[in-house]
Amino acid sequence: MPGPDIITLSMTEIARRIAAGETTAVAVVEACLARIEAREGDLHAWAFVDPELALEQAHACDQATPEGLLHGVPLGIKDIIDTRDMPTEMGSSIYAGRRPPADAACVALVRGAGAVIMGKTVTTEFAGSHPGPTTNPHNAAHSPGGSSSGSAAAVADFMVPAAFGTQTGSSILRPSAYCGVIGYKPTFGTYNIAGIKAAAQSLDTLGLHVRDLDDIQLLTAVLINRPFEPLKAPAARPRIGVCRTPLWDAAQAETRAALDDAVSRLEQAGAALCDVTLPAAFAGLEEARILINCYERSRHMTNEWRDHRGALSDRLQVVMQTGLDTPYEDYVAAMRLTEDCRQQSDVPFDDLDILLAPCVDGEAPEGLENGGNPRFAGLWTAIRLPALSLPTHTGPNGMPIGIQLVGRYRDDDRLLSAAKWVLEKLGAPSIG
Amino acid sequence: MPGPDIITLSMTEIARRIAAGETTAVAVVEACLARIEAREGDLHAWAFVDPELALEQAHACDQATPEGLLHGVPLGIKDIIDTRDMPTEMGSSIYAGRRPPADAACVALVRGAGAVIMGKTVTTEFAGSHPGPTTNPHNAAHSPGGSSSGSAAAVADFMVPAAFGTQTGSSILRPSAYCGVIGYKPTFGTYNIAGIKAAAQSLDTLGLHVRDLDDIQLLTAVLINRPFEPLKAPAARPRIGVCRTPLWDAAQAETRAALDDAVSRLEQAGAALCDVTLPAAFAGLEEARILINCYERSRHMTNEWRDHRGALSDRLQVVMQTGLDTPYEDYVAAMRLTEDCRQQSDVPFDDLDILLAPCVDGEAPEGLENGGNPRFAGLWTAIRLPALSLPTHTGPNGMPIGIQLVGRYRDDDRLLSAAKWVLEKLGAPSIG
Repeated sequence: MPGPDIITLSMTEIARRIAAGETTAVAVVEACLARIEAREGDLHAWAFVDPELALEQAHACDQATPEGLLHGVPLGIKDIIDTRDMPTEMGSSIYAGRRPPADAACVALVRGAGAVIMGKTVTTEFAGSHPGPTTNPHNAAHSPGGSSSGSAAAVADFMVPAAFGTQTGSSILRPSAYCGVIGYKPTFGTYNIAGIKAAAQSLDTLGLHVRDLDDIQLLTAVLINRPFEPLKAPAARPRIGVCRTPLWDAAQAETRAALDDAVSRLEQAGAALCDVTLPAAFAGLEEARILINCYERSRHMTNEWRDHRGALSDRLQVVMQTGLDTPYEDYVAAMRLTEDCRQQSDVPFDDLDILLAPCVDGEAPEGLENGGNPRFAGLWTAIRLPALSLPTHTGPNGMPIGIQLVGRYRDDDRLLSAAKWVLEKLGAPSIG
Repeated sequence: MPGPDIITLSMTEIARRIAAGETTAVAVVEACLARIEAREGDLHAWAFVDPELALEQAHACDQATPEGLLHGVPLGIKDIIDTRDMPTEMGSSIYAGRRPPADAACVALVRGAGAVIMGKTVTTEFAGSHPGPTTNPHNAAHSPGGSSSGSAAAVADFMVPAAFGTQTGSSILRPSAYCGVIGYKPTFGTYNIAGIKAAAQSLDTLGLHVRDLDDIQLLTAVLINRPFEPLKAPAARPRIGVCRTPLWDAAQAETRAALDDAVSRLEQAGAALCDVTLPAAFAGLEEARILINCYERSRHMTNEWRDHRGALSDRLQVVMQTGLDTPYEDYVAAMRLTEDCRQQSDVPFDDLDILLAPCVDGEAPEGLENGGNPRFAGLWTAIRLPALSLPTHTGPNGMPIGIQLVGRYRDDDRLLSAAKWVLEKLGAPSIG
């Protein structure tokens, strides 16, 4: 039966209750819709929700024999990801009302596992820096961060238990940190990205916003096709490298305080910590990432640039023009530096399970225009490592900030297992 | 004025003549259309050609002030690449008549440089192994190879001077070798692939079918935005590693003979040759590539698998089912082996300019059902190196076979320069 608390449950628990007959897909979706109805006027997290369409999917689930892992469970989809039955507008007037002919691969996969596609969440314009209308659920005067603004806000505000986001710089981890949820960017290439609007093809990664680490396991099981097993914390105490990064001076006091607090409490809890200094090449990595982003985006969006330039925001026009003006040789040099950093990043993990690093500059900025700086998560996106933001701390205004955990390339399982340990020791996220 | 020979010119020469006022875009396009009209009944190279639409573009060019490098020059587009004004059917009934809303990035870029989009060339079903109707221009009883069947055949048969192809295994180089044209697969990621139907995202590469190496320079200038300069052969004699690969025993007599002949003539011409043996890991590379291909494709095509399974060929269904049955751990192991080979592949190029390797098993197989084996080009696709097929030899039936030149990662310029030297020494390709 739908209780007032059903919307606070994890996806995994909702799936379990539906499968056990303790609740129904309709009850869950109705509860989420009621929350959206109550809060969307403040939050603006959704680019598209059709309550009838959501309920129709839920009814169909309740009438069918449960087969998939996500049977009847609602999910939000970032609006740069194609859906066959809902518009996909990319946060741009250019694509207003556009109906894609088919689901993106990730949408087809979760649908195949029984998920209810709740609607499309607000993205910044083409997943860039020009903001959408979404506000921060903890304080509507502050940014939710971008580009997966609506996904992070909707999950934080209990409108859905989980949502898809995408990250090219810090577009999953930053809004997750600002809104106080868990953000997960897997190793580059882990989840299939067919049917997702490209921003920068050598960086674009599909990932998740959730409130419970087990939900990452559940969605990963569906997306990469493996059995679902709840996370187990590691048998031995985790070996954690503390990596303040060459950008440490850009961090605000609350981010420094959060990291230092995490270090001291994890040490007390028995983790083996050591400081990790990145090789010299990493000093140029953020600049290289920005160049790669501009160069690749300016090619992906050739069509919009040619036919709809006036409909692009000033910010995006600057990015496009910068990319178009960038000589190919500079792009190759940036790619070489990035690939060099990728290879060098493997070494520390011979002796470490995860890195602990700053996630965002500080609390979510005031006003919606400034969605925050991507640099702290962008470093790790550039070198394709799996990363998590955990909502473990708050700043001086009581707004959430996250810490970032980074894993070895293609060793997401170890990252997630260590993250479970870390989250247990630092306490469950305090949200709302 | 259009002469009988205009269709045999390179893209670069056509562009020069139009720019110099020696001919017109309409004259060129009319000549190509006449060739298509005369030969398409035998060749079936085109999925879509609308003569009026092509002429309309040509007229517009002739009335405009030339600005771009490709002003008035016709180009064929493989039919998995989106075009805003022509259907994009993927070689599948599922997409019959489908009109994409926008150009793929590569199409927008060449259009922006003034190219006339001649039409859509036949692809095998979703760029896989199930053939389209295209025949080999040298003998209609033989396969043109795939998956870029129509692009290779149309260029070989003088219907267009150049065409886009894509390669995930050997889909550019193999049909180029079978049809007797130059095939070019750049370093992975060189040309933007937004708007191209994905086959396997970690391997998919956009490339070219041409009859003249300078046309690669011309199209590259447009696609990556750099000035056009005709190719120069290297100042010093090239250092060429002869790499017969672990697959050498699979090569037919004509491929072995072509390679041996190339070695002996290049040595006589003054090249510095040496044998290169690949590291042990390469023995498993072809198997890893096949696994990666099946796994990634099965995710990209989740939507078609769910909604249109009966419309997929038996072959593609086997690939999809194989991919869906592949455990994620096996995929990761294959990716690790491949990445390991990638890193090891850099070493020989410290002392070498290019590798010379087999390109195809042998001549194009008889019948259209068997499009040939991708293994000889697939090896280098897997490790993302730039590669060329050069139409330097013929087999026992007088059908073309190519040799393959492979360059260092991201050093396409050195590969192309050395290729010019090689092609000069071995003689121009004999076509038709």
